[in-house]
Amino acid sequence: MRILIANANTTEAVTEVCVAAARQAAAPGTTILGATPAFGPRVIATRTENAIAAHGLLDTLAGHIGQVEAVVLAVSHDTALDAARQMMPCPVIGMTEAACLTACTLGSRFAVLTLGDAGAYEELVAHHGLTARCSEVTGIGITPQEVLRDPAEAQARLLEAIGRLAVRAHSVVLAGAVLAGMDRVLQSRAEVPLLDGIACGVKLAEAMVALNLPKPRTGPFAPPQGRESIGLSAPLAALLKGG
Amino acid sequence: MRILIANANTTEAVTEVCVAAARQAAAPGTTILGATPAFGPRVIATRTENAIAAHGLLDTLAGHIGQVEAVVLAVSHDTALDAARQMMPCPVIGMTEAACLTACTLGSRFAVLTLGDAGAYEELVAHHGLTARCSEVTGIGITPQEVLRDPAEAQARLLEAIGRLAVRAHSVVLAGAVLAGMDRVLQSRAEVPLLDGIACGVKLAEAMVALNLPKPRTGPFAPPQGRESIGLSAPLAALLKGG
Amino acid sequence: MRILIANANTTEAVTEVCVAAARQAAAPGTTILGATPAFGPRVIATRTENAIAAHGLLDTLAGHIGQVEAVVLAVSHDTALDAARQMMPCPVIGMTEAACLTACTLGSRFAVLTLGDAGAYEELVAHHGLTARCSEVTGIGITPQEVLRDPAEAQARLLEAIGRLAVRAHSVVLAGAVLAGMDRVLQSRAEVPLLDGIACGVKLAEAMVALNLPKPRTGPFAPPQGRESIGLSAPLAALLKGG
Amino acid sequence: MRILIANANTTEAVTEVCVAAARQAAAPGTTILGATPAFGPRVIATRTENAIAAHGLLDTLAGHIGQVEAVVLAVSHDTALDAARQMMPCPVIGMTEAACLTACTLGSRFAVLTLGDAGAYEELVAHHGLTARCSEVTGIGITPQEVLRDPAEAQARLLEAIGRLAVRAHSVVLAGAVLAGMDRVLQSRAEVPLLDGIACGVKLAEAMVALNLPKPRTGPFAPPQGRESIGLSAPLAALLKGG
Amino acid sequence: MRILIANANTTEAVTEVCVAAARQAAAPGTTILGATPAFGPRVIATRTENAIAAHGLLDTLAGHIGQVEAVVLAVSHDTALDAARQMMPCPVIGMTEAACLTACTLGSRFAVLTLGDAGAYEELVAHHGLTARCSEVTGIGITPQEVLRDPAEAQARLLEAIGRLAVRAHSVVLAGAVLAGMDRVLQSRAEVPLLDGIACGVKLAEAMVALNLPKPRTGPFAPPQGRESIGLSAPLAALLKGG
Amino acid sequence: MRILIANANTTEAVTEVCVAAARQAAAPGTTILGATPAFGPRVIATRTENAIAAHGLLDTLAGHIGQVEAVVLAVSHDTALDAARQMMPCPVIGMTEAACLTACTLGSRFAVLTLGDAGAYEELVAHHGLTARCSEVTGIGITPQEVLRDPAEAQARLLEAIGRLAVRAHSVVLAGAVLAGMDRVLQSRAEVPLLDGIACGVKLAEAMVALNLPKPRTGPFAPPQGRESIGLSAPLAALLKGG
Repeated sequence: MRILIANANTTEAVTEVCVAAARQAAAPGTTILGATPAFGPRVIATRTENAIAAHGLLDTLAGHIGQVEAVVLAVSHDTALDAARQMMPCPVIGMTEAACLTACTLGSRFAVLTLGDAGAYEELVAHHGLTARCSEVTGIGITPQEVLRDPAEAQARLLEAIGRLAVRAHSVVLAGAVLAGMDRVLQSRAEVPLLDGIACGVKLAEAMVALNLPKPRTGPFAPPQGRESIGLSAPLAALLKGG
Repeated sequence: MRILIANANTTEAVTEVCVAAARQAAAPGTTILGATPAFGPRVIATRTENAIAAHGLLDTLAGHIGQVEAVVLAVSHDTALDAARQMMPCPVIGMTEAACLTACTLGSRFAVLTLGDAGAYEELVAHHGLTARCSEVTGIGITPQEVLRDPAEAQARLLEAIGRLAVRAHSVVLAGAVLAGMDRVLQSRAEVPLLDGIACGVKLAEAMVALNLPKPRTGPFAPPQGRESIGLSAPLAALLKGG
Repeated sequence: MRILIANANTTEAVTEVCVAAARQAAAPGTTILGATPAFGPRVIATRTENAIAAHGLLDTLAGHIGQVEAVVLAVSHDTALDAARQMMPCPVIGMTEAACLTACTLGSRFAVLTLGDAGAYEELVAHHGLTARCSEVTGIGITPQEVLRDPAEAQARLLEAIGRLAVRAHSVVLAGAVLAGMDRVLQSRAEVPLLDGIACGVKLAEAMVALNLPKPRTGPFAPPQGRESIGLSAPLAALLKGG
Repeated sequence: MRILIANANTTEAVTEVCVAAARQAAAPGTTILGATPAFGPRVIATRTENAIAAHGLLDTLAGHIGQVEAVVLAVSHDTALDAARQMMPCPVIGMTEAACLTACTLGSRFAVLTLGDAGAYEELVAHHGLTARCSEVTGIGITPQEVLRDPAEAQARLLEAIGRLAVRAHSVVLAGAVLAGMDRVLQSRAEVPLLDGIACGVKLAEAMVALNLPKPRTGPFAPPQGRESIGLSAPLAALLKGG
Repeated sequence: MRILIANANTTEAVTEVCVAAARQAAAPGTTILGATPAFGPRVIATRTENAIAAHGLLDTLAGHIGQVEAVVLAVSHDTALDAARQMMPCPVIGMTEAACLTACTLGSRFAVLTLGDAGAYEELVAHHGLTARCSEVTGIGITPQEVLRDPAEAQARLLEAIGRLAVRAHSVVLAGAVLAGMDRVLQSRAEVPLLDGIACGVKLAEAMVALNLPKPRTGPFAPPQGRESIGLSAPLAALLKGG
Repeated sequence: MRILIANANTTEAVTEVCVAAARQAAAPGTTILGATPAFGPRVIATRTENAIAAHGLLDTLAGHIGQVEAVVLAVSHDTALDAARQMMPCPVIGMTEAACLTACTLGSRFAVLTLGDAGAYEELVAHHGLTARCSEVTGIGITPQEVLRDPAEAQARLLEAIGRLAVRAHSVVLAGAVLAGMDRVLQSRAEVPLLDGIACGVKLAEAMVALNLPKPRTGPFAPPQGRESIGLSAPLAALLKGG
């Protein structure tokens, strides 16, 4: 089984980190591929960038049709998830979606922990319809740069936050590319399970491939058919046309 | 005051229809401009197209910085509304958003009436946080082509739906580009007020310009600053960079 | 266009402050009139007073039928808004309603800032169906008298609260008659837009008059017809009778 | 124990019907008194009338201070319930509130059945925070006059509705003054319990008096103190002043 | 009228405390009986114990068929409430349910105060559909043992919490067996009414018996009929069989 | 990896059907075991039976400690899921929970299709916090006996319902033991994916084992410790004691 780890920003290094994390989580028979968009924001940090990145991501996915059995979106905003799900002939899983759904099987409520703006993830959890399961979204207010500069300080801040969140939450989702792998670093010192979106995404993708469910033949998640466009790449335009 | 009517699909004729409707609604001192993206779907009918169209729309808006005092998105899905709102230095109003907010001042509950898939508008109303005010979203199950081919039949079907919706709703939002102007055609035969997104959008945009509120200087709606990208148009890349 | 600024308490001075604020916000062709009820509480500070004030407000409105094209309720509790909306043949806008709806076009979430009891405004936001858009309602715990006695202290307290609210909210609605005009005083020192109900109400009322929508002919917002009463003023009794 | 059955409209005959129903439900030691406002709508059928009636109701209650140990509002809209609750030194129970709370102890979901506009009762159930417990509010679309003219037909229509509601609801609240006593007429032919607001209100009022809970000394349900007014009746003005 | 106070854990002393509290609340003609399960957890402090205790409770109730006119569950988790309600031919009231419903008649919002884990009561309030009425659930973080060892300290902590909760809540429900009677101890020093589940449960049970409503003849709250089982006690097996 | 398929009713034949379905879904290295409680209802069809069955299920699970790496509850009501999750040292997955979470990755909304009472599954979906993702729960109103007697008729009825649900839902969860395997029979004739709880549960259980997350060390999902009981089986009593 081949799973595509699809980054939505144009920083190759982020793709590589996510691919490595995915390989650690993958089952023996699973091959992990990575993809980075050809255009768009270097790193998605604003709503504007997230909206622009959707195009680059879908363009990248269109170039991998037929080459993979499942896709995991390697972007913690689950950028363009619904659109990718409609467009692709195979299962598409968002990394934060995967972590949140997995967290649902661990207790009544999960928390989401991120570095910066909590609001965007609150809206994402609401978009996924999981607000009632989420005790809190919190940001520890440090930048990715600071995490890289002083990892020990960042870990201490994260553990302090996890301890506080565990009063209400039964697991904690770590959200944000720079936190990839942090679950393994911190788990032994945390009182509740920590969830990494890439690992959860790979396992959920493998499960979906095994279930072998068909795509809907009707409704908003049936693949596009006969849709005209201008100025898009050939593979993306072809996908919209269908046929 | 100059208001940009920004289409999100690449069909010039749709832009022109919306510009005409906007001119009818505009106050004496208001100048209406139109804009159509240079690339993207011809008509947005699927989630995939809507996600792709965001880029084209933002690209178009970036080209109009400094030329307008407000923007009305002339696309009933309110495509990329939050992103445009963050990115632009002026007020940005979505046409369905405008109609729904206006409907809130007419009674306790409004309904949304569209041609096809109701689900997308239900999700849009939920995204706008107005589910509690919306009695129902309904689609009459005919295509834009059928509306153009047999307008009398379409009007009869719409009036029948409006009558049914008026049992629970105190006004009805007409959603969909092809329904532009239908409010004026049907209003005299409808028992409750009918709302057109372009007209409501223009009035709300004029009100926002008059209120002269500043942009946020912090948080997710403060304009992007120092964001790097590749492969984007010069104006869009410049906007992300800020400065 | 004539807009009535209708106070719901019987303190003429409050009416005058609101009328002055409305004139600042009004478009060139708009005439602002003020009205104060003939009976009822001096200032509305409790639920009991708010319920009693509804009668006085509706009585006042009944006396202005045919003299104005729109009404803005100059009371931050939006007292008797639904009833006034049903009863009057023209648009009726609540000042807090107007500020909250306007705030919806500025970002994902707004906060409400008031002097005293936050609970009443939480219920008002919930009544307007906007709870999902409201990050928080907070009261700074000082009295109107204290605001008048030491405005510098009050402004410092308000700015401190605005700063704290701006972590989650993308704009702040100022609620309460004594805060009228405070938006202009504080805006330059605030990181997010501040919204004043009277200004928003006037702009929304002007927009509604321009849209020229009909009243519903059916349902709970169709004007009363043939309703009998005793002991009410002649204009109010006549309105209930209709005809 | 003396319980006041307080009508909110000015039709003495309605008060008498409710007083009679209350006496049937009352415990041996309970004395039932009735009160009708001195001014206001004859029958509350619109939002305008409901808002006006609040004043008349509170005025009536103010005249009974010290004469009763509890109040049941004999108006299915629970008119001015929160205000009366704050103002009176004794428990105040709304008749529809009472029926809905009682219904909560009979199953997971109740339905509300009324003659006309369902929307007003949906909003009332939402105001009471019980939307999640209410499967449906439905109106059978006949007038009070028609019920009086052809009771057999009305009963057949009500039973048909009850049968349909019982598919989802585990009890049915009958809402509307003209349905008083209908529970006893229809219960033997209904598959689920039927709830009458007056009977439930009297039992809940008796329970509250027995519990002997104090009034809040702080917050929005603490009695008004030192509130000034003009043009109100002496007892009502005195209550606002407190002391 | 005979009311059964049914404990769900197997500690006889807890039953006795609740029976005593019930007798204080009961009307003159009411006889209070107590019952303790024959098997199950000594004290319910975990979800596992709560799930196991359901069987013991239902088994106990089955042994009291025909001997009582109503049941109050003397367990703050309202263990197996829906099941008991379906199974028993008489009204069944949960003690926390009763306190929360009663609190609804005292103001807009109540708080729940407990010793330990707040989450379980938040879920219980949500199960009862009353989340919108509940301002907060809070635990003061001390054990039942600590309450017994140093009651003065516990009371001080509770009063401090009540004072803080009263900023938002208009009454406070005390949840947990060890807090039985604490309402009477603390009420005079509290600013809002305090609610004890046993007292509220007894009054609501008496009201339900007086209302004399039938059981549903259809749906999930109609008594079981013809259900087969193995290994259950004779009375419980017989109840499932019905007949 | 060994996965226990744990039935909650005492009908061995149901366990066998679920074990067979689980084996079809299991990965090569997975061993499927089955377990049936020693006491309790034959088939769970009422709330009373569901509450009683919790004890039998937990008793059975306690007897399998150390023998399996994960548990799938083979009962469509997800009986005692939270309790089992707390109690067991390994992942525990509910079959309807699993189907609903899986459905979340297939589109915006899923429907639930069952034979009889829809209300119980609506409450289950609400308990899982997934109401916003669920377009509808519907029962086709036939008994398990009728399904076995006339499978062709049942399939026709199910397909008709699936077609109707697919207007709003993007996948359909089949709920109820007797529908096990029906997804494979009907899928080719259905327009949207059909989800079987046992298959989804096995895949999710395998994923959870692979993720190898620790149990919480604090809060309501940390295993019971030092809890006393009487009259329970030795393994269950030992689990409550912990240590």
